Parts: sequence; structure tokens; C-alpha cells
Amino acid sequence: VENEFVDYLCSQLPPHPLVRIGPGDDAAVLAAGADEDAVVTTDLLTEGVDFLLDEVDARRIGRKALAVNLSDLASMAARPEAVVVALALPRAGGFRLAVELYEGMLPLAEQFGTAIAGGDTNSWDGALVIAVTAIGRLTDRGPLLRSGCQVGDRLLVTGSLGGSIAGHQFDFRPRVNEALQLHADYQLNAGIDISDGLALDVSRLVGASNCGAVLQLDTIPISDAARCLAKSSSDGQSPLDHALGDGEDFELVLAVEPNEARRLMADQPLDVRLTDIGSCVDQSGLWSACPDGRLIPLHPTGYEHQLDG
Amino acid sequence: VENEFVDYLCSQLPPHPLVRIGPGDDAAVLAAGADEDAVVTTDLLTEGVDFLLDEVDARRIGRKALAVNLSDLASMAARPEAVVVALALPRAGGFRLAVELYEGMLPLAEQFGTAIAGGDTNSWDGALVIAVTAIGRLTDRGPLLRSGCQVGDRLLVTGSLGGSIAGHQFDFRPRVNEALQLHADYQLNAGIDISDGLALDVSRLVGASNCGAVLQLDTIPISDAARCLAKSSSDGQSPLDHALGDGEDFELVLAVEPNEARRLMADQPLDVRLTDIGSCVDQSGLWSACPDGRLIPLHPTGYEHQLDG
Repeated sequence: VENEFVDYLCSQLPPHPLVRIGPGDDAAVLAAGADEDAVVTTDLLTEGVDFLLDEVDARRIGRKALAVNLSDLASMAARPEAVVVALALPRAGGFRLAVELYEGMLPLAEQFGTAIAGGDTNSWDGALVIAVTAIGRLTDRGPLLRSGCQVGDRLLVTGSLGGSIAGHQFDFRPRVNEALQLHADYQLNAGIDISDGLALDVSRLVGASNCGAVLQLDTIPISDAARCLAKSSSDGQSPLDHALGDGEDFELVLAVEPNEARRLMADQPLDVRLTDIGSCVDQSGLWSACPDGRLIPLHPTGYEHQLDG
Repeated sequence: VENEFVDYLCSQLPPHPLVRIGPGDDAAVLAAGADEDAVVTTDLLTEGVDFLLDEVDARRIGRKALAVNLSDLASMAARPEAVVVALALPRAGGFRLAVELYEGMLPLAEQFGTAIAGGDTNSWDGALVIAVTAIGRLTDRGPLLRSGCQVGDRLLVTGSLGGSIAGHQFDFRPRVNEALQLHADYQLNAGIDISDGLALDVSRLVGASNCGAVLQLDTIPISDAARCLAKSSSDGQSPLDHALGDGEDFELVLAVEPNEARRLMADQPLDVRLTDIGSCVDQSGLWSACPDGRLIPLHPTGYEHQLDG
């Protein structure tokens, strides 16, 4: 699994004076100048895994390839500055496809004041691959890391979850401005964006902080798409199952000290709703709370890239 | 062709206050701090085009994926700082393959003091794709651009050319230190690295400078591999043809004012030989000089990514 590979990689990488945060978080933090650090992240999308070219307008695929990178910058509370775009295009119709991918990226880049600074455009006998690398800049509040959760912290989530396959996976708005606003006005201890599923990404968040998490399952905000999907499909998955495991919500999960969390919940400073879905606990792992207070292990459902052999 | 796509892209990209040099050169230049600018470049390698996984040790493929990016930084006279690595791995044996790719990258990264700061590791039903993005830093001499050639400049090339398919394409040493040393000690007007072929890359260099180039064909340094290839193959290509068009030499072509070029040629300050192969001229295009002084058009042979439709 990918986690194992990241562990291998971290064991191999020598420390480097310019790298403040290396592999394992949503993005790397590089010492850049006198006081402002740079953040860099890369996300690669492949046909068949992240999109189906037959079924989706290439503009939406291009938009998604950029948006997932902006979401990673958001989860670090970094301001996007520039991206570079590497494409492996199928030979037939590659030029037209490249134009459409960029037509999807350009408006989103403009919305977020992000430059498309360069790229590499290749054709090959395989299917479409898009690798975007985004560079951002931290504010003087520094990075929002996965590793900052404290036992007792409340876990807050933006928006509602599940069913992104119905369209949200392409149309989501990366929570860049929300992250910057909250990081400026409140004391956030840790954060992650939900790319692979709430349960899996929360377990990564608290795992990086050497603690565990209890989710109050009845408080998890479920999207209309998740409800609709549960109703229309016969696979037995409930709306909650979708919210916990679907992934590609690209909402933020934030760990916030209880008093600060109460203030945040009362203020509701964003256009999108913030929901308190649980807390960080001493016992490692992911748990759900029973009405009587007992904790039951919760399986960290979500999407994991399988790496064989 | 790719050039057409870059033209399209440049016409679509709005100016951005942070982007000093956008698409079209070997790397982008970003305003980073008070006085030092950042350079970012991305290069994507695909199975079947850039390597054959059946025939080459994956460590050499990983090394190449990093080295081509370092060569792009060299051509801008930027000091490498950090890279991120995005992989699309075939499902079978993906973990082992990823480890081997990194085993090839790590020693080269260490040699050049470059951090592997992050990455994205995916598996899919397709063949291997590696997208490396490198971030470098300019010195106070600023970037070495393609667009700086002046009519009359001599064109100097490092090393010898052609036949890289015999092994050099994987084992080449990116000319980072050479570029930094020359850029510090001499006045260089423009530069490019030879990735797609001397003739094609020189035509890009002078094209970006709105001038042309005359190559003295009898002075072009031909590698032993190019001679060997010409001897062993029956395709009628001469050693010179290989040196002009093979590509993946990853040597530097530099445009230097004549007096400065004479000083450089006399000093020979590098471990590798510098050769004067021609000059920049008023007439656009690529030319070779006849013994009687007449100019004959020279076809810009080299590797171009074809983008259909």
C-alpha cells in the first residue's frame, strides 16, 4: 500500500537543510527566503483510476488535475502561486485533448491567482496521465500540518461528505480561501484534506500526530449525493458509509482545541458549514462512540492505491 | 508538434506578477524572495518513448528521470534545491519498481545536493510514467535564457554529441556545475541543453532570440558512440548525422560574444571540452557554411513530440 511506500521512502531520504517538512504530509515545506517558506505538492491523475475520458469532458478532467493540487495547498494553509503541468497524451487527438485540459485549468488558475508557469507535453502509446505540481507560499502563521493534533482537540469538517462520484469529484472548489481565513483568525492545530475518504484521512491525520480519533457518527454531515447514491444502489452502503469512505470530497478536517472549536462553531465564519464530528483521543486508531460512551473500532474505509510486490 | 502547442499555451496564459519567464524556455522563473528568483521545471518520461522497462534497469530509468530535470536547471544556470516525483506504476510489481526508481534517483540527488521533498505514487492499468518537477535557485547573475543570443555570438558546446542511445541517455551527468561555473566566471548571453538533438535545439535557441545560426559542420564534436553507431548500422546515417540529430546528449550550447568566447576557448575551464561550433547570424533559421562561405539551409533534425489533431 502507499503508506508502506512512504515509510520506505522516508527511511531512505537523508535530511536536507532546505526541507522543513518532507514526504508524508499533504505537501512538502521548503525553506525559501528570509521568513516565508514555500510549499510544494504534486498529484498525478491517470485515466481509468481518476477519470474516464469516454465519460467526462476533458475540461473537467483538467480542472480536477489542478484542483486536487490546490486542495493539498489548502490543507497546509498555503497560498497557491504557480503550477507546472506534465502531460502524457494518447497519440490520436492529443493536441485537441491538451487544449481542452488547459481550457479546464485556466479559469480555475485565474480564480485562485495561480500562474501556469510551465509544463511538459508528451505523446505516447498509452492513456492520458496528468501530473500537476503546485507551489505555494505560507503565511506568517506557518504551515498547517497533519502532526499537530493534541489529545482532546475537536475535529471539525467543512461542507458535507460522500457521493462525490456523482460530480463533486470534478466540480469541487478547493478550500484554499477557507483554510487561509481560518488559519489567520483562529488557532488551528492540524489539518488534512479529504482525498481518499473521511475515515481513512482522519486516521492518517491522527496517526501523524501519534494519537487516535473518535468520530460521532450521528454528527457527520452527509451530502445529498451520498443519500441519493445509497437510495439508487443496491450494494447495501448507507449514506453514512458513503460519507465515511467515498473520498474525493476535498473538504478540510481540522483539529482545534475545544474552546477555540466552540468559538469557531459559534462564529461559523465561512460560507460553507463547519461541523464538529469528534475528537482526538489517547488511544491510537479510529473509533466510533456508542451512546453509552464505549468506543468501537471504526474501519478506516477509503481509497488506497495498491502497490503490489 | 509540441512547438505549436507551446505557442497556443503562451497565447492563452494571462501575465502573472510572480512569473518572470513562463512556458517556452527550459524552465520557468518565479519571483521568490527579495533578490533570489526560483526556477521550476517539469519533465515527464513514458515507457516506450523515453525508456524500455524490459531492457533497462529501473534504477537507470529513475536516475534519468531526475537527471533530465537537473539538465533543464543547468541550462538556466540554476542551482537545484528540491524535486518532487509523481509516479504512475503498473499494478504488477509496482512497489518493487518504485523502490528501484528511487534507488536510481537518490544517489544523483545526493551528488547534486538536491532534496527529494515529496511525491505522489499511484498504480494503474497502464505502463510506467514518471513526472519529476525540479525547483532551483538562481544566482545573482540571474537566469541564462534562450532568448539572449546576439548576432555575432559564437556558439559553444560542452562534450561530444550523438549516439546517446548506446547508454549516455541514462548515464549522462547533468551539466549543473559546469553551467554555474561558466555563468559565474564568464559573460554568457544565452543557453540551452541538448535534449532533442543539436540541430533542433540550436534552432530553438536562436529562434527564441530572433536570429539564426550557422554551424561549422566540421567542428562539431562527435562522440565515440556516434561513430560506432554509424559503423554498425546500415541506415546510412553518418557520425555527423547522429551528432546533429540523435538528442539526449544533455550537453550545453552557449551563446557567447566573440572575444569572451575566445577567452573561454583558451581557458578551457571545465573538466569537459568546450568546442566552438558556429555563430549567431541575422538570417533566421539554421545554416551550414560551405568552404566558399555560402550558407546552405540545414534541416533541424531531432526528436519532436508529435501531437495529432
